Amino acid sequence: MAENRFNKDIGRHSVVFETPVYVRGYACVGGKKEGEGPMGECFDLIEQDPYFGQNTWEKAESRMQELAMTYALHKAQCEVKDIKYLFAGDLLGQLMATSFSVNKIEIPLFGVYGACSTFGEAIGLASMAIDGGFAGNTMALTSSHFSGAEKQFRFPLDYGNQRPRSSTWTVTGAAGIVLSNSRHGSNVCIKGITTGHIEDYGIKDSMNMGACMAPAAASLIECHLDEWDVTPDYYDKIVTGDLGKIGKKILIDMLMAKGINIAGNHMDCGIEIYDCKEQDSHCGGSGCACSACVLCSFLLKKLERGEYKRILFVPTGALLSGTSFNEGSSIPAIAHGVVFERI
Amino acid sequence: MAENRFNKDIGRHSVVFETPVYVRGYACVGGKKEGEGPMGECFDLIEQDPYFGQNTWEKAESRMQELAMTYALHKAQCEVKDIKYLFAGDLLGQLMATSFSVNKIEIPLFGVYGACSTFGEAIGLASMAIDGGFAGNTMALTSSHFSGAEKQFRFPLDYGNQRPRSSTWTVTGAAGIVLSNSRHGSNVCIKGITTGHIEDYGIKDSMNMGACMAPAAASLIECHLDEWDVTPDYYDKIVTGDLGKIGKKILIDMLMAKGINIAGNHMDCGIEIYDCKEQDSHCGGSGCACSACVLCSFLLKKLERGEYKRILFVPTGALLSGTSFNEGSSIPAIAHGVVFERI
Repeated sequence: MAENRFNKDIGRHSVVFETPVYVRGYACVGGKKEGEGPMGECFDLIEQDPYFGQNTWEKAESRMQELAMTYALHKAQCEVKDIKYLFAGDLLGQLMATSFSVNKIEIPLFGVYGACSTFGEAIGLASMAIDGGFAGNTMALTSSHFSGAEKQFRFPLDYGNQRPRSSTWTVTGAAGIVLSNSRHGSNVCIKGITTGHIEDYGIKDSMNMGACMAPAAASLIECHLDEWDVTPDYYDKIVTGDLGKIGKKILIDMLMAKGINIAGNHMDCGIEIYDCKEQDSHCGGSGCACSACVLCSFLLKKLERGEYKRILFVPTGALLSGTSFNEGSSIPAIAHGVVFERI
Repeated sequence: MAENRFNKDIGRHSVVFETPVYVRGYACVGGKKEGEGPMGECFDLIEQDPYFGQNTWEKAESRMQELAMTYALHKAQCEVKDIKYLFAGDLLGQLMATSFSVNKIEIPLFGVYGACSTFGEAIGLASMAIDGGFAGNTMALTSSHFSGAEKQFRFPLDYGNQRPRSSTWTVTGAAGIVLSNSRHGSNVCIKGITTGHIEDYGIKDSMNMGACMAPAAASLIECHLDEWDVTPDYYDKIVTGDLGKIGKKILIDMLMAKGINIAGNHMDCGIEIYDCKEQDSHCGGSGCACSACVLCSFLLKKLERGEYKRILFVPTGALLSGTSFNEGSSIPAIAHGVVFERI
């Protein structure tokens, strides 16, 4: 084993897995607005009650995580006891939604935080746990809730504040994915990951998160293509998380300035999850659940059906905190890349 | 490789590493109160200014992380570029201290959150990245700041609130550890980890965190001893994070009720880091930096000198959030175990 020990460590930010990490099952749940969007029919559950039967936004989010986990386990045909590690996180301070979604079940937990890039981070670590031989099955789980996020990061809904055109709409939803070292009939696997570093261009506008995150996405994609030694057309789609319309334009321009053209095969989950004109979402969707739900409702099905052969999934996170924002600090950002491939 | 692939997966919560994960270097920094405590002389740096030259508590905490990272890298005789992954987190909402400590350096980052168990979680993942063959060197980093924590979780200092006898004092400090697959003269390694699940006994008192966390510590230690098939005396010390005096008593009682006696070799970092009588810390120290600084100032030196052969390090985290607390929710807790051994 010693001699090939570092074959998988192919660059500063990237690893390629030695063995296939199979996507054994996945699921997502969403709220009313998500159900009315273009991908509504692909969700496993759409709930009309924004409280999901609870009495606070935060508990609603925990409930969504429970539901996403239950559906994903069911579809993967396994139980909690079969999952060695759960990698989970959310946007709320101290990962509140996660803490209360799994406090009644005994599942070894690694809490992770990467803002809206959380699902990419969680899937990366969950894959490493499989390929490293530490686990047979692992799970990644995340969530976000529009009302809980507005309350925490901007204004409580009751204030009725105006949202500028540059703002995005936090997706109310949760998604979970079960990964495995055994195939279990799956025809999609994870080939490797590229882990991002923080990019901070000094932007301070919490109503323009696309601009905060675009440099992190650009840096990650440039680095990934270089370390994997591939061109953008190696992928059917290069899928960013929640840059929205403004962030997408910045990303494409930034990469173009470096001689990298992704305009033809770029897709942003934030732009796709809502009908921006009809659904008043302005620049698009955002939140941990944005890219997570698009992956677990739409993208993985495209891969399963063979409509895509290979995608680079790049959730993007703006590391916004209400406290640092109020103290006048910038909003640092990060992105994480995961390569999904049809077998 | 296939046949021994799961030798390291020895139980529901535990893995044993196939190859030694070496402790290449480590460092910690602290504030004035920490410097005056019993372990003050073992810190790499004690700073008298609680703001660490910054203008907010949060930026002070980021500065501490920068310092701990710089000292740890220096002692490990390596540079940022040699570290493949940084696993880092803190207590602040959205890991604020971490976001602003590494936003100027290009280091692939996995943000982690486990409240005061964060260092255990980060070391666990950083070790898995080494043993899994994904990296040659990794780093775990964490911090906490008394004033920032009080402001976020309880009352701003200016309120002058009374602290009950059951409360603990959040450690102002930061610690970092560099792990490696090469020995580099080290005589301490990590043998394996036991990853905790959330325990929630319904306790709601944010001024009695020891009681919240003791069940998580008890569950982790019981599970670890069972899965590793060892008795408490296998370790020179079983070291919990920040249970404090009340939590320690509960832990020992809970384990005794299951026939496990750790009274003779248990140590709690929260009790050790301050002179509780002289330093007005009541039940002891707490915060991510509590166990992290005791490990990186005292415990690792004991192992290096051969005064300990083997310890089980169990940082404990109370997943307290100001929001969930104000909404009347309980305080779930988690603990993570790491086995350090002298070679």
